[in-house]
Amino acid sequence: MSVARGGRLAAADQAMLELNQSVEVDKRLWREDIDGSVAHIGGLEGAGILSSEEAQTLRDGLSQVAREIEAGQMQWDPVKEDVHMNIESRLVEIVGAVGGKLHTARSRNDQVATDLRLFARRRGVEILEALDGLGGVILGRAEEQIDVLMPAYTHLQRGQPSRLAHHLMAWQEMLWRDRGRLVDAITRLNESPLGAGAVAGTGFAIDRASVAQSLGFSGPMRNSLDATASRDFLMELVSALAILGVHLSRIGEEIVLWSSSEFGFMELSDGFSTSSSMMPQKKNPDVAELVRGKAALLIGATTTLMVLEKSLCFGYGRELQDDKRPLFDSCDNARIALNALAGAIETASFRADRLEGALERGHLTATDLADYLVTQGVPFREAHHIVGGLVRKASEQGIELSKLSAEELLAAHPSLQGSEVRAALDPRTAVERRALFGGPAKARVLEAIADARARWQLAQKESIAGA
Amino acid sequence: MSVARGGRLAAADQAMLELNQSVEVDKRLWREDIDGSVAHIGGLEGAGILSSEEAQTLRDGLSQVAREIEAGQMQWDPVKEDVHMNIESRLVEIVGAVGGKLHTARSRNDQVATDLRLFARRRGVEILEALDGLGGVILGRAEEQIDVLMPAYTHLQRGQPSRLAHHLMAWQEMLWRDRGRLVDAITRLNESPLGAGAVAGTGFAIDRASVAQSLGFSGPMRNSLDATASRDFLMELVSALAILGVHLSRIGEEIVLWSSSEFGFMELSDGFSTSSSMMPQKKNPDVAELVRGKAALLIGATTTLMVLEKSLCFGYGRELQDDKRPLFDSCDNARIALNALAGAIETASFRADRLEGALERGHLTATDLADYLVTQGVPFREAHHIVGGLVRKASEQGIELSKLSAEELLAAHPSLQGSEVRAALDPRTAVERRALFGGPAKARVLEAIADARARWQLAQKESIAGA
Amino acid sequence: MSVARGGRLAAADQAMLELNQSVEVDKRLWREDIDGSVAHIGGLEGAGILSSEEAQTLRDGLSQVAREIEAGQMQWDPVKEDVHMNIESRLVEIVGAVGGKLHTARSRNDQVATDLRLFARRRGVEILEALDGLGGVILGRAEEQIDVLMPAYTHLQRGQPSRLAHHLMAWQEMLWRDRGRLVDAITRLNESPLGAGAVAGTGFAIDRASVAQSLGFSGPMRNSLDATASRDFLMELVSALAILGVHLSRIGEEIVLWSSSEFGFMELSDGFSTSSSMMPQKKNPDVAELVRGKAALLIGATTTLMVLEKSLCFGYGRELQDDKRPLFDSCDNARIALNALAGAIETASFRADRLEGALERGHLTATDLADYLVTQGVPFREAHHIVGGLVRKASEQGIELSKLSAEELLAAHPSLQGSEVRAALDPRTAVERRALFGGPAKARVLEAIADARARWQLAQKESIAGA
Amino acid sequence: MSVARGGRLAAADQAMLELNQSVEVDKRLWREDIDGSVAHIGGLEGAGILSSEEAQTLRDGLSQVAREIEAGQMQWDPVKEDVHMNIESRLVEIVGAVGGKLHTARSRNDQVATDLRLFARRRGVEILEALDGLGGVILGRAEEQIDVLMPAYTHLQRGQPSRLAHHLMAWQEMLWRDRGRLVDAITRLNESPLGAGAVAGTGFAIDRASVAQSLGFSGPMRNSLDATASRDFLMELVSALAILGVHLSRIGEEIVLWSSSEFGFMELSDGFSTSSSMMPQKKNPDVAELVRGKAALLIGATTTLMVLEKSLCFGYGRELQDDKRPLFDSCDNARIALNALAGAIETASFRADRLEGALERGHLTATDLADYLVTQGVPFREAHHIVGGLVRKASEQGIELSKLSAEELLAAHPSLQGSEVRAALDPRTAVERRALFGGPAKARVLEAIADARARWQLAQKESIAGA
Repeated sequence: MSVARGGRLAAADQAMLELNQSVEVDKRLWREDIDGSVAHIGGLEGAGILSSEEAQTLRDGLSQVAREIEAGQMQWDPVKEDVHMNIESRLVEIVGAVGGKLHTARSRNDQVATDLRLFARRRGVEILEALDGLGGVILGRAEEQIDVLMPAYTHLQRGQPSRLAHHLMAWQEMLWRDRGRLVDAITRLNESPLGAGAVAGTGFAIDRASVAQSLGFSGPMRNSLDATASRDFLMELVSALAILGVHLSRIGEEIVLWSSSEFGFMELSDGFSTSSSMMPQKKNPDVAELVRGKAALLIGATTTLMVLEKSLCFGYGRELQDDKRPLFDSCDNARIALNALAGAIETASFRADRLEGALERGHLTATDLADYLVTQGVPFREAHHIVGGLVRKASEQGIELSKLSAEELLAAHPSLQGSEVRAALDPRTAVERRALFGGPAKARVLEAIADARARWQLAQKESIAGA
Repeated sequence: MSVARGGRLAAADQAMLELNQSVEVDKRLWREDIDGSVAHIGGLEGAGILSSEEAQTLRDGLSQVAREIEAGQMQWDPVKEDVHMNIESRLVEIVGAVGGKLHTARSRNDQVATDLRLFARRRGVEILEALDGLGGVILGRAEEQIDVLMPAYTHLQRGQPSRLAHHLMAWQEMLWRDRGRLVDAITRLNESPLGAGAVAGTGFAIDRASVAQSLGFSGPMRNSLDATASRDFLMELVSALAILGVHLSRIGEEIVLWSSSEFGFMELSDGFSTSSSMMPQKKNPDVAELVRGKAALLIGATTTLMVLEKSLCFGYGRELQDDKRPLFDSCDNARIALNALAGAIETASFRADRLEGALERGHLTATDLADYLVTQGVPFREAHHIVGGLVRKASEQGIELSKLSAEELLAAHPSLQGSEVRAALDPRTAVERRALFGGPAKARVLEAIADARARWQLAQKESIAGA
Repeated sequence: MSVARGGRLAAADQAMLELNQSVEVDKRLWREDIDGSVAHIGGLEGAGILSSEEAQTLRDGLSQVAREIEAGQMQWDPVKEDVHMNIESRLVEIVGAVGGKLHTARSRNDQVATDLRLFARRRGVEILEALDGLGGVILGRAEEQIDVLMPAYTHLQRGQPSRLAHHLMAWQEMLWRDRGRLVDAITRLNESPLGAGAVAGTGFAIDRASVAQSLGFSGPMRNSLDATASRDFLMELVSALAILGVHLSRIGEEIVLWSSSEFGFMELSDGFSTSSSMMPQKKNPDVAELVRGKAALLIGATTTLMVLEKSLCFGYGRELQDDKRPLFDSCDNARIALNALAGAIETASFRADRLEGALERGHLTATDLADYLVTQGVPFREAHHIVGGLVRKASEQGIELSKLSAEELLAAHPSLQGSEVRAALDPRTAVERRALFGGPAKARVLEAIADARARWQLAQKESIAGA
Repeated sequence: MSVARGGRLAAADQAMLELNQSVEVDKRLWREDIDGSVAHIGGLEGAGILSSEEAQTLRDGLSQVAREIEAGQMQWDPVKEDVHMNIESRLVEIVGAVGGKLHTARSRNDQVATDLRLFARRRGVEILEALDGLGGVILGRAEEQIDVLMPAYTHLQRGQPSRLAHHLMAWQEMLWRDRGRLVDAITRLNESPLGAGAVAGTGFAIDRASVAQSLGFSGPMRNSLDATASRDFLMELVSALAILGVHLSRIGEEIVLWSSSEFGFMELSDGFSTSSSMMPQKKNPDVAELVRGKAALLIGATTTLMVLEKSLCFGYGRELQDDKRPLFDSCDNARIALNALAGAIETASFRADRLEGALERGHLTATDLADYLVTQGVPFREAHHIVGGLVRKASEQGIELSKLSAEELLAAHPSLQGSEVRAALDPRTAVERRALFGGPAKARVLEAIADARARWQLAQKESIAGA
C-alpha cells in the first residue's frame, strides 16, 4: 500500500489507481526532488530535528538513489503514486527508519511546488540558451546577406523594395522580446515554497531563508497557502513560451513559403529536409512545418494550465497533478523547435536571384512615385489617387508602372517628368531612400545588426540567481 | 538512413532528427497500422500487383511483426522516424525484398489517416462502453435513493425542495447527450482513406470499396486530397470528449462539495479516497478533483487540434504529426475519468440525514407561498414581492419563513391564512406538487429512471459498423 | 430598482451594476424572448392560470413591445438588468397589473435557456443556408474549370499532377461534413426547457409538451435541473462552427497564396479586394485573410464556452450570463465569412496558364515513373530509390526528370526505355491514369461533382423541426 | 467609395463590406488615433513636409473632430471602413485639401499599431489602479480580521488550524505577482511604431525619436517590419490579464462557497447581491460567479489572440483587424471584475462564529500530534502512521481526535500522555506554533500585512513612462 495513505485508509481501487498515479510522468522531476530534499535536510539539521549524522546518512542515501536513477536501476512503482513517494520509499530501504524523518516539517504540497520551480528555472535557462543560439544564427545570416534586396510584403502581396537582412532582423526583434519575457518569468518564479508545509506552514523552526538560499532561490515565499496552491508561475512561463512559439511559427511559415517552387527564395539543406514515402522527387520543408505545429501545442498547453487552475479554492487541489505534462512538453517543444530552426536557418541557401528578381514585378515603387509628388506639393491623398490610376493603366497593359511612357506619366500629373521621376521608380534607390531609424537602407540595417549583437551579448552575461 | 529519405537526400541533422521523429508517440498505432496494411495487401492482390503467394508472405510477415510487438521484442528506432517505417523495415528484414512491394499504391499520408481513423473508432467505442458503465451506476443509485430529499440549489444557494434522485438524473441527462455526440462523431469518421495515396490517388486499379469494407469502414472517402489532409474527425471527436469532460467536471465539483465537512452529503469509499503525506487525519476526494482536472486537459487538446489544422493548405502538412498525442491523451483521459467516477459513485455513501436536514433552513418554500398567492388571484410579480418582504422579516428575526406567526403572514396579505398556507410551506409537500414532466415528484422521477434505462439499453444494442 | 430584486434586497452598488447588467448584449434575444413568452402564455392559459381575455391582453401587449423594439423605440435600461426584465417591465407599463402574471410558473432560468435554444436554432439554420450557398458556388466553379490541370501539393511542394476541379472538390468535402455536424447540433438542441422553472419545475400544471410543440421543439427536456443549468448545446454548436471556421481558414490560406504574384493562380474581383492607404498599387486579398482570422475568433469562443461551464455545480450559475457574446459573435462570424467567401470565389478569375504552367517544373511524374517500374516487377521501395537517384541527377543538371536522356534513364534501370516510359513522364497522362474512385481523372471528378450536387440538394430539402 | 481604395479598385461587394468594415469596433480607438496623428503632425512639420500653418490647421481640425466625437456628433460610416479613415475623412471635410497631407509618410499599418499601444498602455494603467484598489481592500480586511481563526483547507477538506487574515493575505500575494506581470507588459509595449510606414519605413526624414517622445513612448521601434506586423504586446498583456482573471476566479469561488448556507463564513452586502425572478427568498452571490466567469472570457481572448497571429508571414496581415475586440473586452472585463470584487469584499461581513466553529470538527491538530511525537524522537513517517490510526479510531466512535481518552492515546504510543499532548491538540495553540516566516501565527501575519502595505505603496509611486 502507498506510504502516503498512512494509517487512515484502506487500499485504493484499481480504477482509482489508474487515475491517481502520476509517477510515469512526474518521475522526470527526480533530480529536482532530490535537490529539494537535500536542502530540506539542511533545514531540519539547522532546526535540530536531525543530528549531523542523521543528516549525512540521509544525504548519502539520496546520493545513492540519484545514482540508481541515473543508471536506470530505479524500480518506479505506480502504487507508490508519485516521484516523491518512490524516492522516499527507496531511501528508507537504503538507510532504514531514519529515512522516515526526511518528511518532517514538510508535505508533498510544498515539496512538489519546490520541484516544479527548480525544474522551470533549469529548463527555462536551457531555452534561453537555445534562443540565444537562434538569435546568433539570424544575426550572422543577416550580416552575410546584407546586400541582397527583396520585396517587403503585406497581405502576401509585394509592397515595397526592401532588404533580406532587414527582414531577418524583424525575426530577431520578436525573439528579443521573447527573451525578455522569459527572463521576467524565470526571475519571478525563483522563490522557495519550502517550509510552507501542506498549507499552513509547520511548527518546527526551519530557517526558510537559509533553505531558499541553498537552492539558489531569491528567498522564501511569503505566505504558506499561496506557496502551496499557486501555479501562476507555470501559466506565466508557458504563456511566454506560447508567444515564442507563435513567433517561431511565423518564421516557419515564411520558410515553407520561401522553400516552395513558386517563391524559390531559399533552399533548406538536406540535413533539414525530408522526402516522401511515395513521391521520389520530394524535398520537403518538414522542419518548418513541425516548428509551426509546435505553436499549436504550446497554445493548447497554455489553455490547459489556465483552465486547470481556474476557480480552484485554497489550498492545494489535486488536479494540479496534471500541470506537469503541459510544463514538460512545453519546455521540450520550445527547446527542440529553437534548435531545429537554428540549424535549418544556419544551413539554408538563400537565392539572391529569386529574391531580387521578385522586385521586378508588382509596381513596388508606386509609393515612391506618390512620395515624389508630395515633394512637389501634392497632398499625399491626391498623390496616392493619381498613382493608383497609373497602376491601373499599367496593369491593363500588362506592364509595370515603371514601363509607362513619359506621355502617360505626364498626362496624369504635370510634375511627373524628369530624371527624379525615373529615380523614384528604381527599386534600389527606393531602398536607400528609406534611411530613417528602423528602415531598410543598408547603413541602417548594419547599425541595427551591430546594436542587436551588443544587446544579446550583454544579456547573455547577466545571470539569473541560482540558475 | 531512413527508408523514407529514399535516394534523394543526404542524412538528417541531429537537431532535425529530434524534431522529426515521432515513433516514441505513434508506435501506439501499431495494431491499426498492421490492420491497415493487411487490408491494403488485399487491395494489391485484387489489382494483380501482388500474387497470392506474395500476399500471403506479407500477411505472415506482418503477423510475426505483430507478435514481436505484443511480446515487447520490437526494436523501435527513431532514425526510421515513425511507426510505419519501423514496421515496414522489420517486415523487410523478415520477408526480404518482397516486403518492398507493400508500399505500392500507398503513401504514409493515406496510411496514417487510415490508422488514425481505426484508432479513433476503437477508442471511441471503448469510451462509449465506459460511459454506459457510468450511466448505469447513476441510474442504479437514483433508483436506490428515490426517497431521499434535498434542496435544489442555484448559485450554490438553497433554492427549492427537490430529490437526490432527481439531481442524479440531471447528471444522467448530460451524459446521454454526450453519448449521442460520440456516436455521431464515430459514425462520421468511419470512412476509408486508403487508395488516396500521397494526395492525388494512385494509377493502380485498387478496389477502394472492397478495401474499405474489409476494415469495417462504411466506404471509401470521396476525394484524395481531402482524405489525406483533413483532420476534422479528430477535432470533432476530441471536442465531443471535451464537452463530456466538462460534464464530468461538474459532477466532480459536486462530489468535492458534497464530501466536505460543511456539506457532508456524501462520503467516498476508502478505495476512492486518498490521504495526506503530512496531515494524518485527511481523507481527500482526489478522485473528483482529478476528474475535474481532466476537463482542462481535454479542453486544451481541443484547442491544440483546432490550432494545428487552422490555415493549413492542401494536401498533407507535416505538423499533422503532432495530432497524435492530443488524440491519445484525450481518449485515455476520458476513459480513465469515466471509470474512476463510476467506481467512486457506485461505492460512495449518501447521507440522507444531512441531505434532508438541509431542507430545514433557507426558506425553501418561499416560491410555493408565492404560488399559493397566485392561486388566490394575486399576480405573480406582486406575490413574489410580498413573500420577499416576509423573508426579509423572518431573516431579521433569525427564523425561517415557515416559522413566522399567523399574524405576520396575515399582515402581509389577507389570503395568507389557513391550512393550505401551512401546506405550501412544507418541503415534502412542495416536492410532490412539482409533478409536471421533468419535475422532482417521486412518480415523475421513477418514470424518468425507467425511461432512461430503456433508452440506454436500446442504444447499447445498436452497433457502429466495423466497431 | 430592478423588478428582479423584488422585496428582499436593497439597491445594487454601481460597481455591481456594471458587472451585473447584460441588456446591452442580451437584448439581441428580444424576438426569441417574446416568442417564448407567447408560448408560455399558452401554457398558463391551458393550465387555467390565465383567462382567455388575460392571455389575449398579454399577447397583444407583447406584440406592441415587439413593434416598438423593431421600430427602435424601446428604452433599454441597464438597471432592469436584462432583456427579460426590460420586456416584462414594458409589458406591465402597457397592460397594467395583469402583466405581472406572465412570469407565473416560470423563472428567468428556463426562460433564457429557451431563448438561447430558439436563437441557436434560427441562426444555425441561417448558417446552413450560407453554407449551402458556398457549397453551390464551389460546385459551379469545379464544373466550369473541369479541364484545368494543376499540381497537387504536399508540404507546399509540388507533388503530383492533378486537376483544379479536384482541388475545389476537396474544399467541398470538408464543408459537407461541416453541414452534417451543424444539422446534428441543431437537431440535438431542439428541445424545450420551458416548465423547468428556476431549477425544480413548478407546481402549476403546465402542459410542457404542448408548449414545446408551439415553439417547434421536438419535445420538453426531461429534467428540470439539466434544462436550466446545461449549456452543452452551445458548446456543441460553437465547436462545430469552429471546425467549420478551421476549414474556411484553409480555403482562405489557399486564396491568399494563389493570389500572390509568386503563385498567380487566381485573381480576386475588385469587389472582394482592398487596397493600401500608403501603397497605391496594392490589390490585397483581405477577404481571405479576414476569413482566416475568423477561425481564431471561433476557436477562442469555443474555449470560452467550455471554460465557462467547467466545474459548475447545479443548477444555474450566474456566469452563464457570459455565454451570449461568444454565441452571438460565433454565429455572425460564421455567416459573414461564408457569404464573403462565396462571393469571392464566385467572382474570382482562375488563371489556367499559371496553374498548368506549374506542372512544368518539380519532377511531378516521379511517382509515375516509379509506378512504371513496379509494373515491370520492381518492388516499389526499390523503384522509389531508383527514381529518387534520377531526380537527384536531374536536379544537379538543373533540368526536369522528364528531360533526362535515354542513356541516363537506361543506366538507372534496364526497363527504363520505350514509349511507355515517356508516357509515364507526361503530366496529362498521369492525371488520367489516376482513375480510381476519389482520384483526379476527369471522368471521376465529373462523377464526384454530380454526386455532390445531388447530396447537397437532397439535404437542403430535409427540414429541421421548427426551423 | 472608401478613401483607402484609392484609384486602383472598383467598389466593394456588400458581403465584403460586412466582413471588411471594422469601425463599429475600432472607433473606440478614436482618442488614441487623434493623439497619434497629432504626434505625426509634429514629425511632418519637423521634416519640413508641413509648414507651421498647415500643421496648426491640421491640429485644430483634429481638435474639432475630437470635440465632435466626444459630443456624440460624429457620423461613423462603415463604408469608410475604420476609425482611421473616418477621422481623416472628417478632417478633410473640416480643413479641406490640406487634410490629405496628414497621411504622408504614414500607413494605417504603423498608425493602428501606435493606436493599439497607446490604448493598451492607458487601459493597462487603469487596471493597475483597480488592482491597487482591490489590494488595499484585502489588506484592510486582513488587518481588521487579524484575530479570527479558521481552518486551512486542502482538497476542500479541513486541514490545519489557521487564520482568516492569513488566508486573505494569500489572495494578496497572487495579486501582487499579477501587478508585476502587468507592469512588465506595459513597460515592454511602450515603444513607438510611427515611422515604420506600411512595412518598410518611409523615405521622408521623420525624426522618429522625437515623435516617440511626444507620445510618452520610451523610443521608436527598431525594425519597420516588426513594428507593423507584431502583436506580441497584445498576447503578453492579455495573457497577464487572463492569469489575473484566474486569480480573481479563485477568490470568486471561495466567496461563492463561503456565502453558502453550508459554509456560512461570510455574507455579501445587499449592494453586491442579487435575487431570483422566481424564488422570493434568494440572496445570490452573482458578483462572485460573474467574476469567476470573466476568467473564462479572458482565457478565450488569450487563445484568440495567439491563434490569430500564429503562422502569419510578414508584414501586416489583415486578420489582425480582429485583435481589437479581444483587447477591448479583456481590459473591460478585468477592470470591472476588479472593481466589483473590491466593493464586494469591502462591504461583506465575515462571520467569526462560523469560521472559528469550523475548527471544532475535522481532527485539525492531527499533524500537531504527529509533530509532538517527532519531538519525542519518533520518525515522522511512523508518527504519521500512529496518528492516522488514532484518527480512524476516533472516526469510528464519531468523535474528534482530541476527545480520545488518555488510555487510547497511551495505547497508541507511550509518549502520548501529559499536558504537552493536550496542548498539541488545541487549535489556537497550533496556529501560534506556526510562527515561521510565511506562517499563520498572529505576529507573522501582522508583519506580512505591514510588509505588503509598504510594497504596494512603493509600487504605486513608481510611474510608467508616458502613462
